[in-house]
Amino acid sequence: MSGTLWGVGVGPGDPDLMTLRAHRLIAGAEVIAYPAPETGESFARRIAASTIPATAEEIAIRIPMRPDRFPAQEIYDQAAEAIGAHLAAGQDVVTLCEGDPFFYGSFMYLHARLAPQFPCVTVPGVNSVGAASAAAHLPLCARNDVLQIVPAPLEETALTERLARPGAAVVIKLGRHLAKVRRVLATADRMEGAVYISHASLPEERVLPLKDAPEAAPYFSLILIPGADPYAS
Amino acid sequence: MSGTLWGVGVGPGDPDLMTLRAHRLIAGAEVIAYPAPETGESFARRIAASTIPATAEEIAIRIPMRPDRFPAQEIYDQAAEAIGAHLAAGQDVVTLCEGDPFFYGSFMYLHARLAPQFPCVTVPGVNSVGAASAAAHLPLCARNDVLQIVPAPLEETALTERLARPGAAVVIKLGRHLAKVRRVLATADRMEGAVYISHASLPEERVLPLKDAPEAAPYFSLILIPGADPYAS
Repeated sequence: MSGTLWGVGVGPGDPDLMTLRAHRLIAGAEVIAYPAPETGESFARRIAASTIPATAEEIAIRIPMRPDRFPAQEIYDQAAEAIGAHLAAGQDVVTLCEGDPFFYGSFMYLHARLAPQFPCVTVPGVNSVGAASAAAHLPLCARNDVLQIVPAPLEETALTERLARPGAAVVIKLGRHLAKVRRVLATADRMEGAVYISHASLPEERVLPLKDAPEAAPYFSLILIPGADPYAS
Repeated sequence: MSGTLWGVGVGPGDPDLMTLRAHRLIAGAEVIAYPAPETGESFARRIAASTIPATAEEIAIRIPMRPDRFPAQEIYDQAAEAIGAHLAAGQDVVTLCEGDPFFYGSFMYLHARLAPQFPCVTVPGVNSVGAASAAAHLPLCARNDVLQIVPAPLEETALTERLARPGAAVVIKLGRHLAKVRRVLATADRMEGAVYISHASLPEERVLPLKDAPEAAPYFSLILIPGADPYAS
């Protein structure tokens, strides 16, 4: 009997926003895996830290954040091998995923490698868009609004083409792309009502009108642009 | 001292996908409000049912689902008045919201009416898109994919214009619009890989290739169209 690979969304940051199922799976885990930067703390692990049993074996999947090292094929190959050994031995492995596992998450790279051989269950989590809307007290989309999720690393022409369109939008993965995104939104006349949020649901959370956002945005920040008439009843 | 209006996401359907915070707030609630159909059971209440204290006072906000009765201004006006009376008397009111409160949720209509006068806190929840991706074992979007959320009630020309574009997409609120959406996706050559999911995370969950979807789709069903290369590492 193989073990099961669990892809567990731990939510946007506040441990209290883990689901009941995530909490129970983590609290009972014998083997826990999570993505981590090349050096330093894993954000997913930080969210779940107080729930992880002291006895759990931990597998940190350390991914270099330098763009030229992506895609990090070999690192996921090695992680899949280490995790697969536990699964083959009949042990479950709980993989911690920031936010929701299949919403811009790296869990898919393990899933692609291991789901063909082993049982694999994904537990959805609260994503950063929901957390940011709540932090900003901002209904994002309603009724027949189209909502676009747009990664900030796209080229300026692609961003302009996407963000000039009507409807609600969220620009994710801001980081060093903030100045470019702000230029695009100003040109598209969509600065009005746009809100900058970083670290939603964490103690260091910040919510600001986009025009007042700091020059240097962290990677875990985003911009909400609500639909035309979010408060229409 | 006023009470606080809590907008609490209860997740997509499985009670186990409530957050720890949602569970605690509901379990301790004295007054609970929720949207409900004109007759019959509230879906949000059903999700939280086993957590609602027997002693809680309940306010069902009954909304006619007939399109000609939307927007249901007067009903939200009345609900805001009933809830506001509790808040003014210093009692908290926990409003149950399917999925995530500000992601196509009706909580915004109470928020718009009550947030100007009373403290108002939104607790994000797992939305139906995350639940559907998990149910279908389908990574939805990665890296620099643009993701569009597109409501099926849009007119065919608007749907075509939106869904012909590259990137990942989710078509929500299918109901009686399924045939139209299928026509649009066939024309746009995007049937391949499209997956139909209804009642994600509930016992009656169904996951099918879109071409095999039933003729009559429930309102709580959607179509996932993954990004071009979701499994690329």
